[in-house]
Amino acid sequence: MSSAQQIAQRARMAGNSLKTISNDNRSAILYKIRDALKAGASDIEAANKLDLQNAKETHLSDSLLKRLDLFKGDKFETMLQGIKDVADLEDPVGKIKMARELDEGLTLYQVTAPVGVLLVIFESRPEVIANITALCIKSGNAGILKGGKESVNTFREMSRIINDTIEKNEKETGVPVGAVQLIETRQDVNDLLDQDEYIDLVVPRGSNALVRNIKNSTKIPVLGHADGICSVYIDEEADLEKAKRIVFDAKTNYPAGCNAMETLLINPSCPNWWEVLENVTRKGDVTLHCMPDVKKAYLDKLTQLGTSDDVIKTHTVDVDEKHDFDKEFLSLDCAVKFVNSTEEAIKHINVHSSRHTDAIVTENKDSAELFLKGVDSSGVYWNASTRFADGFRYGFGTEVGISTSKIHARGPVGLDGLVSYQYQIRGNGQIAGDYLGAGGNRAFIHKDLDVTRKITL
Amino acid sequence: MSSAQQIAQRARMAGNSLKTISNDNRSAILYKIRDALKAGASDIEAANKLDLQNAKETHLSDSLLKRLDLFKGDKFETMLQGIKDVADLEDPVGKIKMARELDEGLTLYQVTAPVGVLLVIFESRPEVIANITALCIKSGNAGILKGGKESVNTFREMSRIINDTIEKNEKETGVPVGAVQLIETRQDVNDLLDQDEYIDLVVPRGSNALVRNIKNSTKIPVLGHADGICSVYIDEEADLEKAKRIVFDAKTNYPAGCNAMETLLINPSCPNWWEVLENVTRKGDVTLHCMPDVKKAYLDKLTQLGTSDDVIKTHTVDVDEKHDFDKEFLSLDCAVKFVNSTEEAIKHINVHSSRHTDAIVTENKDSAELFLKGVDSSGVYWNASTRFADGFRYGFGTEVGISTSKIHARGPVGLDGLVSYQYQIRGNGQIAGDYLGAGGNRAFIHKDLDVTRKITL
Repeated sequence: MSSAQQIAQRARMAGNSLKTISNDNRSAILYKIRDALKAGASDIEAANKLDLQNAKETHLSDSLLKRLDLFKGDKFETMLQGIKDVADLEDPVGKIKMARELDEGLTLYQVTAPVGVLLVIFESRPEVIANITALCIKSGNAGILKGGKESVNTFREMSRIINDTIEKNEKETGVPVGAVQLIETRQDVNDLLDQDEYIDLVVPRGSNALVRNIKNSTKIPVLGHADGICSVYIDEEADLEKAKRIVFDAKTNYPAGCNAMETLLINPSCPNWWEVLENVTRKGDVTLHCMPDVKKAYLDKLTQLGTSDDVIKTHTVDVDEKHDFDKEFLSLDCAVKFVNSTEEAIKHINVHSSRHTDAIVTENKDSAELFLKGVDSSGVYWNASTRFADGFRYGFGTEVGISTSKIHARGPVGLDGLVSYQYQIRGNGQIAGDYLGAGGNRAFIHKDLDVTRKITL
Repeated sequence: MSSAQQIAQRARMAGNSLKTISNDNRSAILYKIRDALKAGASDIEAANKLDLQNAKETHLSDSLLKRLDLFKGDKFETMLQGIKDVADLEDPVGKIKMARELDEGLTLYQVTAPVGVLLVIFESRPEVIANITALCIKSGNAGILKGGKESVNTFREMSRIINDTIEKNEKETGVPVGAVQLIETRQDVNDLLDQDEYIDLVVPRGSNALVRNIKNSTKIPVLGHADGICSVYIDEEADLEKAKRIVFDAKTNYPAGCNAMETLLINPSCPNWWEVLENVTRKGDVTLHCMPDVKKAYLDKLTQLGTSDDVIKTHTVDVDEKHDFDKEFLSLDCAVKFVNSTEEAIKHINVHSSRHTDAIVTENKDSAELFLKGVDSSGVYWNASTRFADGFRYGFGTEVGISTSKIHARGPVGLDGLVSYQYQIRGNGQIAGDYLGAGGNRAFIHKDLDVTRKITL
């Protein structure tokens, strides 16, 4: 048996056991892990110093060094608080989603249950290991964790403390050793990506390249997104002030965010549409990569109004038509195109967007409804900035990631994305052969019950 | 561009358009398709005769011939009625699953939406094409359909009628040509299984070999199950009469069903446990593949009671320990093993079952709850036969399949399994930069709304 298979099987066994642990005990072990990490702060800091020293020797960039440093500012305290926050969330497991009386004394329940085994791959920020440990245990899933090699000493030390704590408290809390396993090498990841018999979901947290690479290397479902190519469409009947505000926010509030606008679609019948472009360039320093007709109409208009100047000119460039509409700029750049109708906007988005989040600005309800129905993305917005696509803004308490898959979890994913469901039937000895369709005469009742009532026979 | 890619892209375009069609229009086209198939009955029958003739020439088995024959008994009428039944189901699209006020005038909705493009692969029963067409269109998904080659003439004729009807009514109903595409060759399937950019879900409907082969050949999520290895566990505190009835039903009601029991786990502390075995053999002609200790204890007991005879002896054989607990017999055979506790039963099931459906027979509530929590299968039953695992018995109106995946749809899958969801935000020009965490001062409200209210601004 390969090492990867052993790790995956061990996780599966731990997951089967974790599935039966009460929410109180899952939360209790998280509190204990938080305390142990706090008590072990000096050991963790020593390990972190080692990572920082190695990083300096290999001339890592300053921004990467900053991310590696776990004891800069209140990062460590925030990490500990994060474990507590997750522990205190509502239990995602065991929620009754549907209850139906099949017959007297024969009841069907659809109940949330952990997915099972998660393989979580992240990059260098050392605090992520604590966050992921909390998410896995709280949701009743076993986790196999792989962090970036730059933080290996910090990860190792934190993992040691976490696993010691789980082991010490296994009798009391029931949370099994094996619930959280740290793996260290790239080869281990590659081997684990083949273990689709034991691993149920891969959660990559990091760069687009990381996610894309993982999606291409496994048959296991992947929860995440490689690209965030979000569009805003300014409709013929857009309120110009809303359009200006939304475009400015969507592009400039955090250009490196996956929910930032990368493509701006404009209906040229919208009166004074050019003000949207002028505003985002002047106030936001954004460079517009324009289709030829947009560029010409925009600059002609500005000349005609006598408002054209060098800033505008240097910030208005030709779009690379072949690539820029499928590109995540992650910078103060934006591709701009004219579309003549909401239908045309929807078509463009469904071909070019990464199914993340797209918005329409309009006062016309019919256009809005058409857009919300027609766009095939996880988030479809009417008169709101794409930047709202975020687990915390959605009120999920925590964010596991943002998914652009079409099934399971879509969009910002909270703890709910780490659970699936099972059907329970509670009976009194009933057999199918007594019912119509399988040889008997009894008919099913199929009466839906109030899902808020507690499960009792 | 390959032919497969063209087909997949065409389906994607059709799916994007289908997504926006009202339930009335989706149902209307199904009624029209039903009428057209009825009107075209003689053409379909001629094509079906051709298939039957070819089948006879290639010496297909009688049972396969029977399945091919679409005009035997009331099969054709039942098929037409099936289209109507699906058309009349509640719309699975556009249901509000969650509604939350993020701020005044800024509301988040989680709304069900079609998955997009389905690749449905089935075998020779010609009526399946009508059923699948109905399921796809009703759920707003584009379908690419591949049937068994034995029915190719029937499929071709029915597909022609279906597509003619869609084309003729495209203006009126909006349902686009390309919504249902029939493909004919095995090579096309193989090529389509690579089109994970355009195809969202594969639904194989057929033999275990078909499903296993497809699962191994694609990165696209597969809705279905290769095996149904279901177990029944007779607990120490089982009611013996319930145990006898449930085991008899689970094994003999339809042995070829995926929800039939294949493994029987017995706690030897259950008084008179052997009666369960004797009952299922005498009344059900079942052959028991027993572990050595079960076989010895069982036969000793019967001898001791003076009830042993040749029927029992020839129906009690040695289990093939390496294979029989991971095997779907699909016949009147059953592997039998002693386990000494509910925990041990759970462990056995979590290692050997195919995560389909497993049951415990017990009067002890704690054992039952442990079993329901601990077993990692899509269906977990207490005092009920595994044979209840079925979309119609669950009250789903129709059954798309039974899934043993851990994510998306699990267990019997109704139309709901063909939809996913999208998040809609309806706002009034709000931008993230006004809120805490993104540069502003406003806090989110995060107030959950009643999901039964209609969407209105």
